[in-house]
Amino acid sequence: MTVRMTELSWTDYDRKVRDENPVVFVTVGSHEQHGPHLPMCCDEVIPTAIAEKVAERIGALVAPSIVFGYKSQVRSGGGNHIPGTISLDAANLIGTIKDVICELARHGIRRVVLMDGHYENTMMIAEGVDLALRDLRRDGITEIKIMRIGYYEFTSPDAEKAVWPDGFPTWALEHAGVMETSLMMHLYPELVHADRLPSHPPADFPPYDVFPMTWENWPSLPKDGALVASTTASAAKGKLLFDEYVQGIAKAVTAEFGLKGTAQGG
Amino acid sequence: MTVRMTELSWTDYDRKVRDENPVVFVTVGSHEQHGPHLPMCCDEVIPTAIAEKVAERIGALVAPSIVFGYKSQVRSGGGNHIPGTISLDAANLIGTIKDVICELARHGIRRVVLMDGHYENTMMIAEGVDLALRDLRRDGITEIKIMRIGYYEFTSPDAEKAVWPDGFPTWALEHAGVMETSLMMHLYPELVHADRLPSHPPADFPPYDVFPMTWENWPSLPKDGALVASTTASAAKGKLLFDEYVQGIAKAVTAEFGLKGTAQGG
Amino acid sequence: MTVRMTELSWTDYDRKVRDENPVVFVTVGSHEQHGPHLPMCCDEVIPTAIAEKVAERIGALVAPSIVFGYKSQVRSGGGNHIPGTISLDAANLIGTIKDVICELARHGIRRVVLMDGHYENTMMIAEGVDLALRDLRRDGITEIKIMRIGYYEFTSPDAEKAVWPDGFPTWALEHAGVMETSLMMHLYPELVHADRLPSHPPADFPPYDVFPMTWENWPSLPKDGALVASTTASAAKGKLLFDEYVQGIAKAVTAEFGLKGTAQGG
Amino acid sequence: MTVRMTELSWTDYDRKVRDENPVVFVTVGSHEQHGPHLPMCCDEVIPTAIAEKVAERIGALVAPSIVFGYKSQVRSGGGNHIPGTISLDAANLIGTIKDVICELARHGIRRVVLMDGHYENTMMIAEGVDLALRDLRRDGITEIKIMRIGYYEFTSPDAEKAVWPDGFPTWALEHAGVMETSLMMHLYPELVHADRLPSHPPADFPPYDVFPMTWENWPSLPKDGALVASTTASAAKGKLLFDEYVQGIAKAVTAEFGLKGTAQGG
Amino acid sequence: MTVRMTELSWTDYDRKVRDENPVVFVTVGSHEQHGPHLPMCCDEVIPTAIAEKVAERIGALVAPSIVFGYKSQVRSGGGNHIPGTISLDAANLIGTIKDVICELARHGIRRVVLMDGHYENTMMIAEGVDLALRDLRRDGITEIKIMRIGYYEFTSPDAEKAVWPDGFPTWALEHAGVMETSLMMHLYPELVHADRLPSHPPADFPPYDVFPMTWENWPSLPKDGALVASTTASAAKGKLLFDEYVQGIAKAVTAEFGLKGTAQGG
Amino acid sequence: MTVRMTELSWTDYDRKVRDENPVVFVTVGSHEQHGPHLPMCCDEVIPTAIAEKVAERIGALVAPSIVFGYKSQVRSGGGNHIPGTISLDAANLIGTIKDVICELARHGIRRVVLMDGHYENTMMIAEGVDLALRDLRRDGITEIKIMRIGYYEFTSPDAEKAVWPDGFPTWALEHAGVMETSLMMHLYPELVHADRLPSHPPADFPPYDVFPMTWENWPSLPKDGALVASTTASAAKGKLLFDEYVQGIAKAVTAEFGLKGTAQGG
Repeated sequence: MTVRMTELSWTDYDRKVRDENPVVFVTVGSHEQHGPHLPMCCDEVIPTAIAEKVAERIGALVAPSIVFGYKSQVRSGGGNHIPGTISLDAANLIGTIKDVICELARHGIRRVVLMDGHYENTMMIAEGVDLALRDLRRDGITEIKIMRIGYYEFTSPDAEKAVWPDGFPTWALEHAGVMETSLMMHLYPELVHADRLPSHPPADFPPYDVFPMTWENWPSLPKDGALVASTTASAAKGKLLFDEYVQGIAKAVTAEFGLKGTAQGG
Repeated sequence: MTVRMTELSWTDYDRKVRDENPVVFVTVGSHEQHGPHLPMCCDEVIPTAIAEKVAERIGALVAPSIVFGYKSQVRSGGGNHIPGTISLDAANLIGTIKDVICELARHGIRRVVLMDGHYENTMMIAEGVDLALRDLRRDGITEIKIMRIGYYEFTSPDAEKAVWPDGFPTWALEHAGVMETSLMMHLYPELVHADRLPSHPPADFPPYDVFPMTWENWPSLPKDGALVASTTASAAKGKLLFDEYVQGIAKAVTAEFGLKGTAQGG
Repeated sequence: MTVRMTELSWTDYDRKVRDENPVVFVTVGSHEQHGPHLPMCCDEVIPTAIAEKVAERIGALVAPSIVFGYKSQVRSGGGNHIPGTISLDAANLIGTIKDVICELARHGIRRVVLMDGHYENTMMIAEGVDLALRDLRRDGITEIKIMRIGYYEFTSPDAEKAVWPDGFPTWALEHAGVMETSLMMHLYPELVHADRLPSHPPADFPPYDVFPMTWENWPSLPKDGALVASTTASAAKGKLLFDEYVQGIAKAVTAEFGLKGTAQGG
Repeated sequence: MTVRMTELSWTDYDRKVRDENPVVFVTVGSHEQHGPHLPMCCDEVIPTAIAEKVAERIGALVAPSIVFGYKSQVRSGGGNHIPGTISLDAANLIGTIKDVICELARHGIRRVVLMDGHYENTMMIAEGVDLALRDLRRDGITEIKIMRIGYYEFTSPDAEKAVWPDGFPTWALEHAGVMETSLMMHLYPELVHADRLPSHPPADFPPYDVFPMTWENWPSLPKDGALVASTTASAAKGKLLFDEYVQGIAKAVTAEFGLKGTAQGG
Repeated sequence: MTVRMTELSWTDYDRKVRDENPVVFVTVGSHEQHGPHLPMCCDEVIPTAIAEKVAERIGALVAPSIVFGYKSQVRSGGGNHIPGTISLDAANLIGTIKDVICELARHGIRRVVLMDGHYENTMMIAEGVDLALRDLRRDGITEIKIMRIGYYEFTSPDAEKAVWPDGFPTWALEHAGVMETSLMMHLYPELVHADRLPSHPPADFPPYDVFPMTWENWPSLPKDGALVASTTASAAKGKLLFDEYVQGIAKAVTAEFGLKGTAQGG
Repeated sequence: MTVRMTELSWTDYDRKVRDENPVVFVTVGSHEQHGPHLPMCCDEVIPTAIAEKVAERIGALVAPSIVFGYKSQVRSGGGNHIPGTISLDAANLIGTIKDVICELARHGIRRVVLMDGHYENTMMIAEGVDLALRDLRRDGITEIKIMRIGYYEFTSPDAEKAVWPDGFPTWALEHAGVMETSLMMHLYPELVHADRLPSHPPADFPPYDVFPMTWENWPSLPKDGALVASTTASAAKGKLLFDEYVQGIAKAVTAEFGLKGTAQGG
């Protein structure tokens, strides 16, 4: 049976929920510019690909993604003034996260993993989860547990050295950088313009934010929207990272929810 | 070039927007039970498939879908108490629609088609659009035009006779019925459980609504969630409808936005 | 004792609530243009008149109306750009419906009928009711039952034939048409301009919506705001429909709430 | 022609708006317990009756009322825990006021009088007006002027002496007191239970509020919901007050909007 | 130990909450123009000073203030169009009050006093409290009790005569008047410009409100923002009032919460 | 003249705004547990102290703080389940930030610095600013510029080495750690319990979040709420950091707003 919840009939889904108390993954992504070389879907398709692989290993399901994320910020994503990016007001993203969790809980789901593909979503997820848990406890549902995972936090020191042999530039600057480019080369090579990999130095941002986010207010923002070079990206690095993320996340989810050692068999 | 906006780099997208003033399609779907024989993604994947085909013909783009829709109602969708359905509160769906339109307008898009795959979304789309237009006019953007299309409204009398030779049951009862089943058989046969097609008589609902939506309050609601039989569905009927919808919508969009005769060449 | 809740003292009302567990009707109307011949109050006064008559028969009460409804749409009401129409944003209409239900429940009311006089209200009522029931169940109030009635759904095939001997134009087009005009002629003849009955053919709308709603975007919209001719309207037809609606709704409410056969005596 | 906007056709209304730039009155009332002797509609019907009389004199219109008001407070209305009272959350009342003003402005209305029949509405009206004016100025509508009138503020010292010869108890305590009872006796005598006029001493409240509003937390609250005796009320006093309010408000509105001396002819 | 909650470590605070079930005071103030002679902090610092003194006497705590209040109205504060005033939309003030109460309740606090320093806050506090209590009861917390105190309501007839020997001008007009000026002279003399005390006659306002609040729409509004003269203010009067407020409020809080006679020892 | 806006009369403030176009600092803080040794006001008083010193140097003003911040997260602040912490729902914090900015802009302020004392506020500030700028541009105010400063980002490599000679633990873990303890020892030594400095090892958190935030779900969370030891804190280190922050921020603000070299004279 597919791990994609949306491809199931409700009757098959319902049976699985009642029989297996499955973990459900939900990606919270973004539709965001990722430089001239990557498609705008990166923050949604990468965590979803990881989630599907983990779900296969541990018998979980993957719900449809919350595609649109919070507004891109200059120092971590280039900024929300760049064409192509589609972001939500905080209220609507928070509300959508709350609703999806509450609906899953209504079905009987008690184990949810929010796969966060976009740094700016972090606190919005925290709020959506908090409001959902508040609502649910008032309906007498208190045994629910929710994980939020930023997959990139599962990069081991070894992998970091392998992927960035000349030094890691910080996760914020990694927007459309070596990690995302490599993962896309591994997962969706047909969507990567390998002939357009940015090669400019990392953005040299000041230690504060300026609003409104405009090209004028941010002279140090590269005009292509990528914050760092990705010329050293490769599908092999992407595979290395992908495998590491799948392995690490499967293990963490298994442990956190007390699942029976299914992760090893993955 | 693909019609899928999300697979484009922002630079390619931006160029197309500035050069071609393209129409952008956005599906507003739902994640809703569709009986024991259909997957829960029907209301999102059918209008998106139509939109992509129309977009290819008329040089348009298709944005990522707004996947989750408004709460299923018993007399048109079985009701929101059935497991598997994931719906949004009105506020969050309205807000998301507003945000997506405003972001597209920020990019320079002035022609938007909202493809509505779920009847219950109708007024929520009306409100999301109204709030977006209100915001946009206060930013001085007044030349934008938005269509809302329920693709099933493009069924011709001839097609109706061909698909329902024994009489059309009303659109409301067509939830998970012959039309949707046929379209899914044509588009995504691997997701249809052809061995489970409901064969019960149409739901015999009273001429009013009762809340809360529960199995107890709605004794006339079929227990499988389908409102009508779909045993007469076929991939051939699906193709007939699909082609008709694509043709009709391409023509309507071309005419409404005053595009130069590109629809004919599709 | 009057059926009008608002004309009662709170002590009389309170006694009735505790002694009789009465049904309470609440109209959700609109203040909307209804062509050159009808007043703007139609969607509020017609369902309220029906509710009062039903209430007299079955011992129910009629609360004050929620007068302002959701935004008029072109294909079912001419559109919200026409002067005179006063509509609410979805959020405010939904919230008002929620509040009124919760207040009635606080009084001890457990049987509510929302009389919907305006098609565009349908989903807003669904949402207001859903939010109210959500709040109430968190306060431990779960035995409440709510009906939503669009009175026109109680038109029998016989009445349809009698009122529209040349064929029924669809409910959407019936805005300010034969049904509403006849009902107003029967109920409030002094408010009908019988010398101004529109006689133009039915609006020939395309099978989709266009926004913003403007005269320019809707060339097929009749300039008088009526969607159809009402020259065949009459007080006699109005009486026929009114009696049918009262009879049918009294019966449905009696049955749905398990009231003791009071409807027969009406 | 009637002053009741809702009884006009949109075409008649529209012509008046364009030709006369009329003042529009909107009552913001409440549905609130008013002791054992008065109906729950007082706060809506009294200001509306005044508004209609003023409108006749000065050529104005009266829009449908915003019937439900803000939550009754103990020291000015007995409290919102008493059965029968139907109040709105602040957000919904504020939003409704905003929407009604914005819709009137869309019609071309530039002179609005909000007739406040319920003390607790005061700041909600201030906020609804502020939000409406904020929205309107962003649409370029800045010449609009709005009055908020609490009709009871138009009581002259002479009338005060005539109505309360033994001393005025404060407006807060006048809830369901001599003024409102007298006005109802004058305007709607059939709705007054003259045999139930409260005769207890004025409520002896502490100089602060206690929440939640319950009978237990407010031992000094009279159990009949009236805050003061009304045994000295009379239709004659009601007429005196009504005439004074009509005269005073007509004069104030005429002066504030710079109308041409029509008030004198009233 | 200080009465200022914010200066405590969480461990000391937590111990006190569990051991003593203390009353917690929270000022709801404003940042509002107070004429040319007073600083803009008056509505926050005066009630906080009173609260701290009361808290010392009765063993209570004082939480950080909710500094920004509801929009200043002309007839009670000069109006929100005057520079320097920083007010919140109703929604945000209401929400903040709700959140602070709910957080205190989460800590275990069951006795809260909201010290209101700004008349326009009154109904916003009522709503914030109502929403908080609604939320809390759904979490099973029903034993909480909340007082709202406008400190000026504790002015005795004797004090009134002493402070305003020539007659009291009404609380509304007392904005930046003798009471507030005297209290500031007593509490924060360094913040009072004694050389700028307004000496103009009281504002002669009409008995209604006009919006938008502008200098043009309110010709009777003194241009310095003070509604009345304060030339008779003095630190001695301030001390008299301060001591009276502290004494009265300590007694009321002690009585209302059934504290054991600690108020006497103050 | 004081830099504290709230201690000014509106007339003095207004003159300064019109004459000098001053920068205004607004702290966005939190009321949050900071271990057993620090008071709960740290996140508000530290950035405010820095802001006041910078304001003195560059002729700026400091507005009252937005005291309550977004909900504490376990991995950066211990979590919002710990007693004493008072946080706001995202909506209310965002709305408050928006309102304060809009009010400052109404006064004529065009240069605002939001001093962020609490990591969890970051995206809420981004949203509050975005909504404010959206509103302001619709009022024709487009020349406004806003900085968001997390003061700790101004720590130089040299200072980092001096303060954490044994290695820097990451900013997230620095909650109630050496930096904040040292700064409080320098600024408010009377509020620091030097005898209670935590000496446990840094919290060993997993690379993901778990909700609900409870002691049970977070076994690795130190029970005193501090995430790291602060035994090496000192007032001298606090002074070093404070001076560095003041110097760096003064320089950055001067440069970003193009002020005339006033920072040097500080």
